[in-house]
Order: sequence, then structure tokens, then C-alpha cells
Amino acid sequence: MMWQDATVTYPQGFQAYAAAAGLIVGRLDMACLWSVVPAVFSGLFTTNQAAAAPITVTKQVAAKGWCQAIIINAGNANAVTGQGGLQDAYTMQQYMADHLGVASEQVAVASTGVIGVPLPMDQVQQGMSQLVDAWQQQHSDGVKASEAILTTDREPKTLACDVTLSSGVVRIGMMAKGSGMIHPQMATMLAFFTTDAAIEKSILDELMRQAVSRSFLRVSVDGDPSTNDMAVILANGQSGVHVGTPEDIEQFGKALAHLARQGARMIAHDGEGATRLITVRVRGAATEEDAALKARTAVRSNLVKAAVYGGDPNWGRVIASVGSVGLPFDLSAVSLWIGTVLVLEGGLPVPMAEDQAHNELEADEVVMDVLIGNGPGFAEAWGCDLTEQYVEINAHYRT
Amino acid sequence: MMWQDATVTYPQGFQAYAAAAGLIVGRLDMACLWSVVPAVFSGLFTTNQAAAAPITVTKQVAAKGWCQAIIINAGNANAVTGQGGLQDAYTMQQYMADHLGVASEQVAVASTGVIGVPLPMDQVQQGMSQLVDAWQQQHSDGVKASEAILTTDREPKTLACDVTLSSGVVRIGMMAKGSGMIHPQMATMLAFFTTDAAIEKSILDELMRQAVSRSFLRVSVDGDPSTNDMAVILANGQSGVHVGTPEDIEQFGKALAHLARQGARMIAHDGEGATRLITVRVRGAATEEDAALKARTAVRSNLVKAAVYGGDPNWGRVIASVGSVGLPFDLSAVSLWIGTVLVLEGGLPVPMAEDQAHNELEADEVVMDVLIGNGPGFAEAWGCDLTEQYVEINAHYRT
Repeated sequence: MMWQDATVTYPQGFQAYAAAAGLIVGRLDMACLWSVVPAVFSGLFTTNQAAAAPITVTKQVAAKGWCQAIIINAGNANAVTGQGGLQDAYTMQQYMADHLGVASEQVAVASTGVIGVPLPMDQVQQGMSQLVDAWQQQHSDGVKASEAILTTDREPKTLACDVTLSSGVVRIGMMAKGSGMIHPQMATMLAFFTTDAAIEKSILDELMRQAVSRSFLRVSVDGDPSTNDMAVILANGQSGVHVGTPEDIEQFGKALAHLARQGARMIAHDGEGATRLITVRVRGAATEEDAALKARTAVRSNLVKAAVYGGDPNWGRVIASVGSVGLPFDLSAVSLWIGTVLVLEGGLPVPMAEDQAHNELEADEVVMDVLIGNGPGFAEAWGCDLTEQYVEINAHYRT
Repeated sequence: MMWQDATVTYPQGFQAYAAAAGLIVGRLDMACLWSVVPAVFSGLFTTNQAAAAPITVTKQVAAKGWCQAIIINAGNANAVTGQGGLQDAYTMQQYMADHLGVASEQVAVASTGVIGVPLPMDQVQQGMSQLVDAWQQQHSDGVKASEAILTTDREPKTLACDVTLSSGVVRIGMMAKGSGMIHPQMATMLAFFTTDAAIEKSILDELMRQAVSRSFLRVSVDGDPSTNDMAVILANGQSGVHVGTPEDIEQFGKALAHLARQGARMIAHDGEGATRLITVRVRGAATEEDAALKARTAVRSNLVKAAVYGGDPNWGRVIASVGSVGLPFDLSAVSLWIGTVLVLEGGLPVPMAEDQAHNELEADEVVMDVLIGNGPGFAEAWGCDLTEQYVEINAHYRT
């Protein structure tokens, strides 16, 4: 696998367009992702009971299994908007289908932004019209598209890679947005993967499920699962390389998982107001699920997050949060490292370790390793520190 | 039931002493609660796997069922301190037993403060010696004791009441501390109830369980269940009034539950950095448990908390958090009131309601009522807004 500083347009046969519809003033705020042929489509969606209208629409597309275009807007989530909102999402789907000349059931819709405000369809129409123009003129720009899907994110999140399979090289690309209301169940607001591999839907579904469960489902910026989360992949086969043998499947799955993991880390790192990425790894749990629950609980702890922000190696908060959930463990078997510094060994504080640990909290990424026993369960989770800026952003998001 | 602006010493036969041991510089930081006779003792304790040493000791006392004294310190939690910490807790228990002339198995221990630092036993010894002196001189002062158990709390939390039973009046008193690391599973750090009623342990256990489950277990300041939480009650029978008839039990249980509920509200209101109390009530759920889960999730949502702080009636965040957990519901049956203003009716935003709702967020207590269906399940939960001060307090708690 070779990393590429590229985006969703890196795999063959994918294009991406951006538009400024005025949903977010002075910025690109709509995008269209396009495959030159219908692509195998797989996705994971929020489990929130208040799932947004575009989730309903795009789940239907995923159920059918093919997608050629995704229409995306930022600035308005089209969530908790009732039947009218659902109608708006279908209108977006239909408009793009009509103008791009594809079946509407192969057009997915994604939205992110404020909840409970009807989509300003005049502006959305303008944006869609710009996107269709750009498509007609082939003004594909993956970087601009990755900017157009952001809300409070500070920077676009894209990455791509080459994967060498038995019969040739395939490419996978990704763009994502995150920032606020980020928490497992799905985690990121929006993540779009593209690949030019040829792959069966059932295999893609399973690889995607695995990749997402160990990446986006392990991110927490603020513990709030969004109404609009989705992570989807389009596989258009344009490389002519088939993901065929078990080794190919393993190889492709690994690459997809790596890409998803990097995407998850980017989202955590760019959490609202964050200054540091926090990685918590739990080892020695009875099961991976238990390790994941404990790791996620630690990274979502406001107290842990605030301590990291303050540069305070207050490991007691890590132990308290790990101890608050999941299967029982023996505290006298618990050890904790902050970075490379062992601060708790077998349930006992290591003398003088805190001074050293202090320096580890200066790093851009703070890694905490928790050993809780001798079970086989391992999991990592990602979060970010809690700052005054997080409060400011979310106290006045709409004002 | 008649409310009294009083504390744990209001019921007959209870005394409380305070000392300044230097655990928190320049403040009272140790207390002793004393009953003139051994009292029936009941309690609920943190379920955190990393439960502190005093929890271990006091659970043993609760298992035996009788308690005459509780020794309490603030400033150090004696948690994650290994065998040495457990020994320190037993030393506190034994010292007080020896000097107050009671069996050590009838002395409970409670601690609150920083995790993972050995108790400075020299200072603790000084504090205990002051407490014994005060006890010998009968310098009981319930108000000072309620101050001595605080950490980052801004004010003491006490309340008492009279309860008229079939054969006379009994009294119940309470002091509590909360503030940080406050979340169900147990909720408050420390809550002490006293009553001069005569009551059987099995009945007291059940009434206490009910009272706590609908009060302290429904508070969330920051979602972090502490290692040291406990809520205990001493019933010393000094009123001579027996909680005998089913009506008496109901009456006494109601009073205890009311008192616990008020204590829970005080703790939420005085959350670290908080400017407002947030009450979320969920109705129409299938079960009380589901309603409680949804209400608790809403009050612990950083996004809801930040919106309340910012005076932003961003009800979408409330719906998103309620929708993220528990049993499914039909969004088109969901209505939401902020204060008295209906902002969402049958899954649809009420036009212009937000401007009115804005004013409701100026209040000292912000109440949000969520109707999610026509089930019998009802529950309320309490939290507080998220402010820059919360971050400041917890980023630099020890520095």
C-alpha cells in the first residue's frame, strides 16, 4: 500500500465538483461526486432515531447497491424537517438524476449543518445548477469538493492510496468531514470513499463494515452521535482489476481499513476547538468490544480531555473513566503509560513519573496505553482535548 | 412534609464536626458525622471498577448494617492508591473508633479529591485529632461540616424536612457535595442523610435505593462516574417514632425521595463552571428506564449544554441526543417544549417559536420537556450548562 496525498478523484473514473450555493456565506458549500459508470455502492449510516432525510434516501440507494452520483450540501442538515424535508431530499436526488442523465435510484444525497431548519431550496437549486454546469464542462476538482463539504472543520480531510493486488494495482481515495457532533454510532458526519477496483457488493459491504467499525466508530469529539452520519464507498471497476483471491480481499480490506483509520484520526484531530489528538489504546481486555468501549469512554471523558488540554498528566481520570464501563477488571493488574512514560504500574502510581509525563502532553498527539489484564482484547480510540474554544463554537454556533 | 433550611444535625441525636487538616489550604477539609447511638445504616456506592479505598471500607460497614460515625475528608480521594491506600482508610476508621469509643466496624469513611495520590496521613491525623477534640467539647456545627466536605463546589448543599407519620413526626437531614466528575452510576460524589426515625434496615435499603435511583443517578455534570461516589443514610430512632404502617413507609419514602431529588438538583446546579440548571423530562417512553436513559443522555450532551450556555434554543441537539440512545421512537410523534414554549410539534419545527424560546434560556433553570410517544415511561434528569470555566477548572485542577 502506498499513501498518496490525493482525494476521491485519485481512483480512475471519478470526478468531483464544487459549488457556492450561499448556504454558508462566502464559501464553497455544495459538491457532487461522480463516477463515469454506475459503481457498486456500500455504506454505513447513523443509528440515531432522528436520522435526517438524506439518510433515508441514501440508505435506499445502498439497498439497491449501485450509485453513480452523490449530491452533498453543507450548512443545513435537512434533519428533523418532517415530510417536507424528505421531499426536498428527493427533489435533490431527482434534479441531479435528470441533469446528469442517470437513474434517480443511483443518486445518493448527503447533508450536514444545522438541524431543524428547512433546506432553502432556492439556494440548493442554484448550487445544483452550478454543479451541473461544472460537470458539463468537466471542471472536476477533488480538492475543492473536499472543501465544499466542510462545516466548522478547520481543514479538508483527504487521502488516497495504491493497493497492489494479484492482477494489478487499484486505487482508493477518501474525503471526509467531521468536527462537531462527532461520536460513534456512526462517528464522522460524512466520509466518502472511491475505488476503481472491481469488487462484489457482499465483499465490499463486509470490508466496509470492518473498516468503519475500527475507525469512525472509535472517534469521539463530543459524545454526540449525529443525525446525518454516513460513510459510503463507490467501487466503479475502472482499473480493470478484480478483487478476486482471498489474498486480494485481505489486501484491499487492509488498505481500506488503514485509510478509514487515518480519516478517523484526522476527524478527531480537527475536533471543534481541539489543540491535540488523543489516542487511547486498551490492551488485555476480555474482548475487543470491551476494550473498544473502555477506550472510547476514556477519549470522550470531559475530564480526560480537559486535563490533556491543560497539560496535566492526571492519569487518575483515565483510570476512573476506563473503570466506569464494561466488564470488571482487577485494578491491581492495571498499568498506564502516557506516551512512553509508565505512570501507573499494577494499580500503583509510579513515583516521579508525572514530571516526565508532563512533557508527553506537549506533543501534537497524546497516546495513552492502558493494560487492564491478560485477555486478548485490544482496541484503540481517538478523541481530542476540550478547550474554551469548543464551548465558544457550540454556545454560539447559530448566533 | 415540611422543608427546613437545615442540615444533617436537624434530626435528633446527630452531631457534626469540622476540621482544617491542611489537605486544602486555608479551608475546612475534614468532617465527622456522629450519631449518639448506633444507627441503622444503608448506602449506595459507585460501580466504578476503580472504586476508592473508603468505598471498600464503607461498603463493609453497610453490609453489617450499623454505623455510629462517618469520617470524611476532602482534597484527596484515596483512590487508585493500592494496598497502602486501603490501609490508610482502615487507619482512619480505627483511629476514630478508638477515640470515639465505638466499634471500628461501625465507623464509615468517605473521601473526595484528587485520584492517585497517597493520603498525607500526618495531616489527616491532625484533622482527626481536631475532630475528636471538637467532639469531646460538643462543638457540633452542621453548617461547617457541610462546608468541610466540599471540593470545587461553590456552595454547601444541605436541606432537611419534617415528616408526619401515624405516630409522630420524624426528621430527615442531608448534606451533599458534587461539582466535578458527576455522573450517574453513582452520581454525586458524596451525600449523607440522617433521620431520627426508627426503621428496619430492609425497608430503609429499599427506600434509599428508590430515592437515589430517581435523583443522584439522574444527575450529570460531565458524564464521568467517579471512583468515590456514595450516598448513605443513618437512621438512629431518636425520635421514638417508628416507620411502621404501609402508609408511614410510603410517606417516609416520599420525603426521602424529595430530599434526594433536591440534593440532586443542587449538585447539578452547582456543576463546575455552571451558570444554569438544565432539567430534561422525557414522557411517553415505553418504560421509565428508557425515559431515564434518554433524559440523561440529553443533559450530558456537550452540545446541548453549550447551547444552553450560549442562550441558543438549538432544540435540534436535544432531539439528536434523545434519538441517539435507547428504544426506537417515531420522530413524527415527538414534541419538545423549551420552558413553556412548544418548539417542535409532531416532528416539525413550530414557526417563530425560537424567538420566544430564547427568553426561556435566560432563566436560572432551563426545563425541556420531550414527548416521544404514548407510552407510560416518564423520567427527569438534571445537568448544567458547559462553560469556558468548566474547561479552565478541569484543565488546571492540580496546577
